[in-house]
Amino acid sequence: MPAPFVHSFRVRYHECDAQGIVFNANWLTYFDVTLTEWFREAFGSYDALVEAGSDLVLAETTVRYRGSARFDDEVAVSAEIERFGNTSMVAAFTARRGDEVLTEARTVYVWVDSRSLAKQQIPADARDRLAAYVSA
Amino acid sequence: MPAPFVHSFRVRYHECDAQGIVFNANWLTYFDVTLTEWFREAFGSYDALVEAGSDLVLAETTVRYRGSARFDDEVAVSAEIERFGNTSMVAAFTARRGDEVLTEARTVYVWVDSRSLAKQQIPADARDRLAAYVSA
Amino acid sequence: MPAPFVHSFRVRYHECDAQGIVFNANWLTYFDVTLTEWFREAFGSYDALVEAGSDLVLAETTVRYRGSARFDDEVAVSAEIERFGNTSMVAAFTARRGDEVLTEARTVYVWVDSRSLAKQQIPADARDRLAAYVSA
Amino acid sequence: MPAPFVHSFRVRYHECDAQGIVFNANWLTYFDVTLTEWFREAFGSYDALVEAGSDLVLAETTVRYRGSARFDDEVAVSAEIERFGNTSMVAAFTARRGDEVLTEARTVYVWVDSRSLAKQQIPADARDRLAAYVSA
Repeated sequence: MPAPFVHSFRVRYHECDAQGIVFNANWLTYFDVTLTEWFREAFGSYDALVEAGSDLVLAETTVRYRGSARFDDEVAVSAEIERFGNTSMVAAFTARRGDEVLTEARTVYVWVDSRSLAKQQIPADARDRLAAYVSA
Repeated sequence: MPAPFVHSFRVRYHECDAQGIVFNANWLTYFDVTLTEWFREAFGSYDALVEAGSDLVLAETTVRYRGSARFDDEVAVSAEIERFGNTSMVAAFTARRGDEVLTEARTVYVWVDSRSLAKQQIPADARDRLAAYVSA
Repeated sequence: MPAPFVHSFRVRYHECDAQGIVFNANWLTYFDVTLTEWFREAFGSYDALVEAGSDLVLAETTVRYRGSARFDDEVAVSAEIERFGNTSMVAAFTARRGDEVLTEARTVYVWVDSRSLAKQQIPADARDRLAAYVSA
Repeated sequence: MPAPFVHSFRVRYHECDAQGIVFNANWLTYFDVTLTEWFREAFGSYDALVEAGSDLVLAETTVRYRGSARFDDEVAVSAEIERFGNTSMVAAFTARRGDEVLTEARTVYVWVDSRSLAKQQIPADARDRLAAYVSA
């Protein structure tokens, strides 16, 4: 049964703003870090994917802010694939502290040739490696 | 005739990532800075709004990445209000370099009491001051 | 025998600049994160120190850049105390990738009352807990 | 009579930490931004220097924290050259809010060939253009 990938970390002091909570833009950074760790599990490393000829370009992202996190909080971000297109895919990220959902994002990534940066069909091997993370 | 507010600035070196382009999360930072400058024009300063008893909480944002910006590029972000609700409003931001649209965002802000942080109806005075920025 | 505290982490993508290396200011961030983890080991958490009535204020820091780190590199930062004063202490941080020294910092922290922010003598209990990290 | 270069800007919201003051590492970012604007005045742009074959590498920096800045504060950073070496130079930065000195830095930059990144003698033309900023 497919399960989302989960990456956990602590909120760093400088990631909080004057209200004492994680600044809104830093959630995108957390999702980006989660993608790196996710692709480490799927491909060995993000660089391995790039060396194999593929890279991802962020086309669109929607973030819903439902709660906030503070310095030193432990946050777990889960990642899964909602939909595979031909040259793009939609990933969903959910950030939680314990059971509480803090933020959610839906992100569209376009697959590109890592040298020419032209759109490419998602390679069959990549599709296979990511199949385990497609949401039910 | 209403016109969007426009804030211009240069891309700072550390805002670019290893690909030499503005890192995706930093666009949210640019929109936040634009909000600060916009509210300086509308209210005197963001702090003046807070002292008058109101603050904004980011509820949701969607960013579309259509181009990229590099170190030292001059970027102009326009801001306007797409819709006023009772306790929330939808703002639209468009970042351009010259005529080229680089990113677009639609952001939902909830108005809260700046002390209790409870939702509040958008005050009549704030609505008046922002009326000039409602999109046609 | 006293040993430095060591905190290891990977370089995040957005921490690198357009040259593909960690941006100079981000090393200060790494030392700050290392302090947080160090004080977790020494005091339970940084917040525990604050609740016990003490906080640290950065007075001066010198960073020497001897190498650079790239995306996804594993970096280990060691921390030790070079000197205890009456109300201040000097900490030394060394960042390494494997055996290679990348950056070094010497940082002066002033101890303050966490409520009044007035200078305070370093409490005896804190001195005891940090004694293990004083350099030989 | 030589005068320091001065760059003024407002503190952005996300540059402040949970204490409501500019996070320590962000002062290095401000000095970096000041360098960019300084070299725009001296060379046309930082890129013009790079295209002419030179680049700067940060070798060492010392920051003294004497005060703090808050969201929306106007900060002015002055920059001057304390000493020209053969292949390096020492710059001094002072950040003020009005007359109050907030932070000071002394930074050693090594001049390198912008293609090979090997140390280079500071070119005579660059030395001439920067002569106006050498401290008295």
